[in-house]
Amino acid sequence: MPAFSQLNPFVASMQPSATLAITARAAALRKEGRDVIGLSAGEPDFPTPAPIVEAAHQALRDEKFGYTANAGTPELRAAIADKLTRVNGLAVKPGQVICSNGAKQSIAQAVLAAASPGDEVAFAAPYWVSYPEQARLAGAEPVAVRTEPADGYVLRPDALDAALTERTRVLILNSPSNPTGTVLSRAEMEAIAEVLERYPRVLVVSDEIYEDVVFDAEHVSFGTMPGMAERTVTVNGFSKGYAMTGWRLGYLAGPAWLTEAVDTLQSQLTSGPSSITQAAAVTALSMDRAPIDAMVAAFRERRDAVLARLVAIDGVRCATPQGAFYLFPDVSGLFGRTTPKGERIDDSLGLCRYLLDDAAVALVPGEAFGDARGLRISYATSMEALMTAMDRIEAAVAALA
Amino acid sequence: MPAFSQLNPFVASMQPSATLAITARAAALRKEGRDVIGLSAGEPDFPTPAPIVEAAHQALRDEKFGYTANAGTPELRAAIADKLTRVNGLAVKPGQVICSNGAKQSIAQAVLAAASPGDEVAFAAPYWVSYPEQARLAGAEPVAVRTEPADGYVLRPDALDAALTERTRVLILNSPSNPTGTVLSRAEMEAIAEVLERYPRVLVVSDEIYEDVVFDAEHVSFGTMPGMAERTVTVNGFSKGYAMTGWRLGYLAGPAWLTEAVDTLQSQLTSGPSSITQAAAVTALSMDRAPIDAMVAAFRERRDAVLARLVAIDGVRCATPQGAFYLFPDVSGLFGRTTPKGERIDDSLGLCRYLLDDAAVALVPGEAFGDARGLRISYATSMEALMTAMDRIEAAVAALA
Repeated sequence: MPAFSQLNPFVASMQPSATLAITARAAALRKEGRDVIGLSAGEPDFPTPAPIVEAAHQALRDEKFGYTANAGTPELRAAIADKLTRVNGLAVKPGQVICSNGAKQSIAQAVLAAASPGDEVAFAAPYWVSYPEQARLAGAEPVAVRTEPADGYVLRPDALDAALTERTRVLILNSPSNPTGTVLSRAEMEAIAEVLERYPRVLVVSDEIYEDVVFDAEHVSFGTMPGMAERTVTVNGFSKGYAMTGWRLGYLAGPAWLTEAVDTLQSQLTSGPSSITQAAAVTALSMDRAPIDAMVAAFRERRDAVLARLVAIDGVRCATPQGAFYLFPDVSGLFGRTTPKGERIDDSLGLCRYLLDDAAVALVPGEAFGDARGLRISYATSMEALMTAMDRIEAAVAALA
Repeated sequence: MPAFSQLNPFVASMQPSATLAITARAAALRKEGRDVIGLSAGEPDFPTPAPIVEAAHQALRDEKFGYTANAGTPELRAAIADKLTRVNGLAVKPGQVICSNGAKQSIAQAVLAAASPGDEVAFAAPYWVSYPEQARLAGAEPVAVRTEPADGYVLRPDALDAALTERTRVLILNSPSNPTGTVLSRAEMEAIAEVLERYPRVLVVSDEIYEDVVFDAEHVSFGTMPGMAERTVTVNGFSKGYAMTGWRLGYLAGPAWLTEAVDTLQSQLTSGPSSITQAAAVTALSMDRAPIDAMVAAFRERRDAVLARLVAIDGVRCATPQGAFYLFPDVSGLFGRTTPKGERIDDSLGLCRYLLDDAAVALVPGEAFGDARGLRISYATSMEALMTAMDRIEAAVAALA
């Protein structure tokens, strides 16, 4: 290896998105002509609502082509602060809102601003794939706190307490959760806040990107917990709730000492997000919510239909998640069984490979999320595709010996 | 300061954009009703060409709302690779192109991927304001290599050789330059490449964002220098050449070991840029170049007009820059003079403050770019505004004692 090709060790330690391998394998099978059903998508299968699209056309007609302020346009920051205050009960001023090229960037910048070598960044497992890698980028150590299928993957106070140390700098919370769909209740959050009182150094990054996709449950913002406002960064965005993934717009809001640092960091790292997307997002926050409600109702119907069939499979267990558009069944009851080709299934990766190769259904193995007992099913696809996929999964599992 | 509000020291060492203070002061004066002429813009004052805007409308009609691949759409990466091969003489494959939310992000990611604590990141001064801060974010030490007004701010091989050490990890080159407008000739680049042969650890980041804005000069890509292809990252984007600043799209291309690391880094830091912008950019690369030629012709006319008046001012010297849309006159001949209010001007910051307060012209002091002898005049504004600004500057300088 030539001298110039040594990577920054922090960057070299980062893993590419763990879902890529299965996506690449699915694409290869499709090229061979196989009818693969992909249940690995992390984005709504609905188009962006029409009023938002029309606002983008209007922004183009208005020639909104120039740089916006680094942290976002005054209109957008004001609309977001208003939303966080009104809907979430967080007392946020427009100056405390930083808009970014996606919520992923918002989380990364909060972690980078706070954590450095020697620190630990904690989060519940199963976790969203980018949390540990963002910790590594900051030179910090990722610490996954195990949660249990039997608890519905709720982060328990005693497990959290056991995982936190004086080196813990950041705790990332994610409710509703990707990949489990778990929504933390107010009481569960209060119990977490109580633990944090014993760890005054911990900054909380509350990733609320799936806020709008909640069924029969209340979405609670962690920043409203007693004593937590001054050390909680609330992250959200437009990708999931408004079906705007490709538009790239996320934001964070929090105490000024943190948002000022993130503003500086972003001003030297990327500058602001797309001016056209920002103009469209202002409309998203003020439009009639009927398209959102319809999308969430469809997600709920699919969750119920897939869940009913899933829990009827011998060896599969799954709690009823109250949010996001994922199921994360515990499939460890299938481990030890053998495929028709004689291969023993020992973990989620093996099961997912079998389901892809033999049943042409693409799922994401739990290893990607730090829990080899489960796998992630995204139901952000049509009911028809979901039912066909369940037919195939049922048949493939029945064929195991 | 509470325990949770300690910043990552690398992030805490970053400075906010140094142009912000003067922009804020100019905004405050405008609020007071002063007719301030801003010559501090870093973006073309032309609208995005119509075919690009129409392509964005079409992308919206085509519902291009979903995530693109992290590194960009296959169409865009292919179009960029083709452009780099055909126009720049770089042998680049689409897989070696990573698209980002602006060229600033491309540079930051190249620096982050290569440099780490203990390393040095070198660049010529006057430099673009983000280079030192991006080095700091990587935990590396920024090293500014002084260039001289009398040399037209060309980076001299002996100065470079004296600045490089075995700790130097990255050399950032910027031709055409922001803030000086200097365009390096092929011979000047060859001399730099010759020096680099003695420093086999150095990766070159060639920031070519102003490539399209060149007058009477050849734009040369540093990656075409003998032996440099395998250790040069070429950075470019759509902001300046296509008047697309707010759209946010930059890219880098380079050896696979580097682009793979940047792909991973970006996949965990932000994901790809806007899908709508990417679709529009494909059109930018294939459209008729008449709108670009017209824009560049206008910039040239303004450069000539401003330069002619500037060099006629006693105490001001300025070489003829061949690119970008900036002039960086040496104003050190005015230092030591006194304003009508009796304040002594000792540096560029003092002169810029005087010109803003007394002449209502906003310029960026050279301190922001690491050279207190000069100041930056952006001529990305109308000829009328430029001529009025020059009237005011001439009068204000004449009033100095």
